[in-house]
Amino acid sequence: CRVCKIAVLSGDGIGPEISRVAVDLLKVAGDIEGVNFDFTDALIGGAAIDATGSPLPEETLQICRTSDAVLLAAIGGYKWDALPPEQRPEKGLLNLRAGLGTFANLRPAVVLSHLADASTLKREVVDGVDIMIVRELVGGIYFGQPRGFRTNEQGQKVGFNTMVYSEPEIERIAHVAFQLAQKRQKRLCSVEKSNVLEVSMLWKEVVTRIGGQYPDVELSHMYVDNAAMQIIRNPRFFDTIVTGNIFGDILSDTASMLTGSLGMLPSASTSDDGPGIFEPVHGSAPDIGGQDIANPLAMVLSAAMMCRYGLNMPQVAEHLEKAVTSALDQGYRTADLFSEGTQKVGCSEMGRVLLKCI
Amino acid sequence: CRVCKIAVLSGDGIGPEISRVAVDLLKVAGDIEGVNFDFTDALIGGAAIDATGSPLPEETLQICRTSDAVLLAAIGGYKWDALPPEQRPEKGLLNLRAGLGTFANLRPAVVLSHLADASTLKREVVDGVDIMIVRELVGGIYFGQPRGFRTNEQGQKVGFNTMVYSEPEIERIAHVAFQLAQKRQKRLCSVEKSNVLEVSMLWKEVVTRIGGQYPDVELSHMYVDNAAMQIIRNPRFFDTIVTGNIFGDILSDTASMLTGSLGMLPSASTSDDGPGIFEPVHGSAPDIGGQDIANPLAMVLSAAMMCRYGLNMPQVAEHLEKAVTSALDQGYRTADLFSEGTQKVGCSEMGRVLLKCI
Ligand SMILES: CC(C)[C@H](C(=O)O)[C@@H](O)C(=O)O
Ligand SMILES: CC(C)[C@H](C(=O)O)[C@@H](O)C(=O)O
Repeated sequence: CRVCKIAVLSGDGIGPEISRVAVDLLKVAGDIEGVNFDFTDALIGGAAIDATGSPLPEETLQICRTSDAVLLAAIGGYKWDALPPEQRPEKGLLNLRAGLGTFANLRPAVVLSHLADASTLKREVVDGVDIMIVRELVGGIYFGQPRGFRTNEQGQKVGFNTMVYSEPEIERIAHVAFQLAQKRQKRLCSVEKSNVLEVSMLWKEVVTRIGGQYPDVELSHMYVDNAAMQIIRNPRFFDTIVTGNIFGDILSDTASMLTGSLGMLPSASTSDDGPGIFEPVHGSAPDIGGQDIANPLAMVLSAAMMCRYGLNMPQVAEHLEKAVTSALDQGYRTADLFSEGTQKVGCSEMGRVLLKCI
Repeated sequence: CRVCKIAVLSGDGIGPEISRVAVDLLKVAGDIEGVNFDFTDALIGGAAIDATGSPLPEETLQICRTSDAVLLAAIGGYKWDALPPEQRPEKGLLNLRAGLGTFANLRPAVVLSHLADASTLKREVVDGVDIMIVRELVGGIYFGQPRGFRTNEQGQKVGFNTMVYSEPEIERIAHVAFQLAQKRQKRLCSVEKSNVLEVSMLWKEVVTRIGGQYPDVELSHMYVDNAAMQIIRNPRFFDTIVTGNIFGDILSDTASMLTGSLGMLPSASTSDDGPGIFEPVHGSAPDIGGQDIANPLAMVLSAAMMCRYGLNMPQVAEHLEKAVTSALDQGYRTADLFSEGTQKVGCSEMGRVLLKCI
């Protein structure tokens, strides 16, 4: 029986209730497939600030480093919004990404036909959409130096950040994206702003060069403003997208709207060899935390991505994915997805439904 | 009779044919209101590169500086795509903005009920949407120093740009946005990424401070990723948006998709005292240039914005706006907007219809 060490970072808000559902499901799916999941809870975000003063305690980073994968729920809440930037929950997330070197963030936006009507876009536009956004996650303007504040000659305050990419940073994310595209529809669109930014000119040049190694993948290039438009105008144009950190942040949220439900979207952040981070795209929803009404499906699908991409156990992933599809088929919906004719359930009840569906 | 000097920069692709329509209309509307428009053509973009080697000849900048307003059509085309960045058509546009100091770019996204079905979003979501995006246009990462390429210690190429804003740069754009919001629904949403970027922290701080001078305007703050999502999810939430250069570039293109027709969207770029630039949001559409099938309405509405915001002649603006509404009411559509039951017309024919409608 294979043993897999999983760090569980429940974080804040609805985090604890949705991770419970995912962990329970993993246990059962693991039993079926002869995998023994060994879960270790660790603190992050607001919960970690309250307990230790730091949004990412050294102990948490150690636990993550020595695990096979990190299952992260969500962080943040009003309570910690007034803290100085260095001490805020988000900093815990950014430090975790940097600490584990998870440079490749995969964010699928798949429109499930069950839920196509939940989108604000017309069904005929979003039906069949299946986009994979590959976002560079540990470089670009999020981490670029120099950054900070200074005073100019006129004594006025100035704030500045640096958007920077080096050749090897672009190469490694390009390889991930091309290889993913090979397993998908073999179309990769690289998004940047090379008509204005030097950092984007280098991005385009390097992605184009790496593309030479993947002649079976059709490579296209698009400016970020146009991409933001085309994702809404003609989303089926896209198969796989590769882009930098902040453009990926914006475009993946745009794409998430195609699906009509943020509560359904998982993500995976992987490095070259260490453990990956698997987390829902949605936030901690502090307003509904602890009320047992949250949607645990994105968390369950994140656990599935963990099994598929992080642990190379696609059979376990399939159990989780099938449970989600079959719960939806049977008409079960949490409040965020509820519509006339479906059956409204809370978070833990959805968990029980999923366990029966496995 | 008042004389107004207008620099007409027709540029490339469909530029010349759509500016002809706008100029003809301005003449007639001016005659009615006792305004004598004095038009001077000048070169920009690809046309300027071909004629002079530079995308913004010094002569053009001089003509613009000594005009009351600049009416710009569109620039760029495949022909010039392979040129080095410094010599490309886009550079002409960026240098014109910087040269005239037009720091405030106003991009309305108004959904006309005639065309609400043209959007990929559901009618009930976009109906009644009226958003004004105020984008800072001559600062931020577009112009920040240092920028360029270098080689790191490992001998690898690095590309970098600087996103930078100073207090006075933020103050002046904030004033423009608050004052616009006062004339609208009195709600201003400031968009940044202050949970990650120092430049955004300063942005938020300064906008909040300036907000103290506009107690009648309700100020909210939103991260750019969330804003990209909310514009699609619940666009009626927004009245006026203020944001930096690149975020504004992306969000205004996102918002343009609500309207279902890029061919309808004008923009205005204004400075504190000098001439403003008025141009459609769409590009030069080189594939259909010269075929007399382009939609001139965004260009006409840009001329209307010029009259309203640049020349303070709202009566002239109204003639143009009413002509557009009435042409649409009568069912006339260019190819991009054509649907069953409407009357398809070319660019110059739409021009004749508009002249009759004035
Ligand atoms: C919380 C925030 C720092 C984070 C980001 O910007 O990366 C989030 O928006 C995300 O996309 O995971
Ligand atoms: C052509 C390009 C340089 C320009 C920009 O990025 O500002 C365009 O996208 C715009 O929005 O006017």
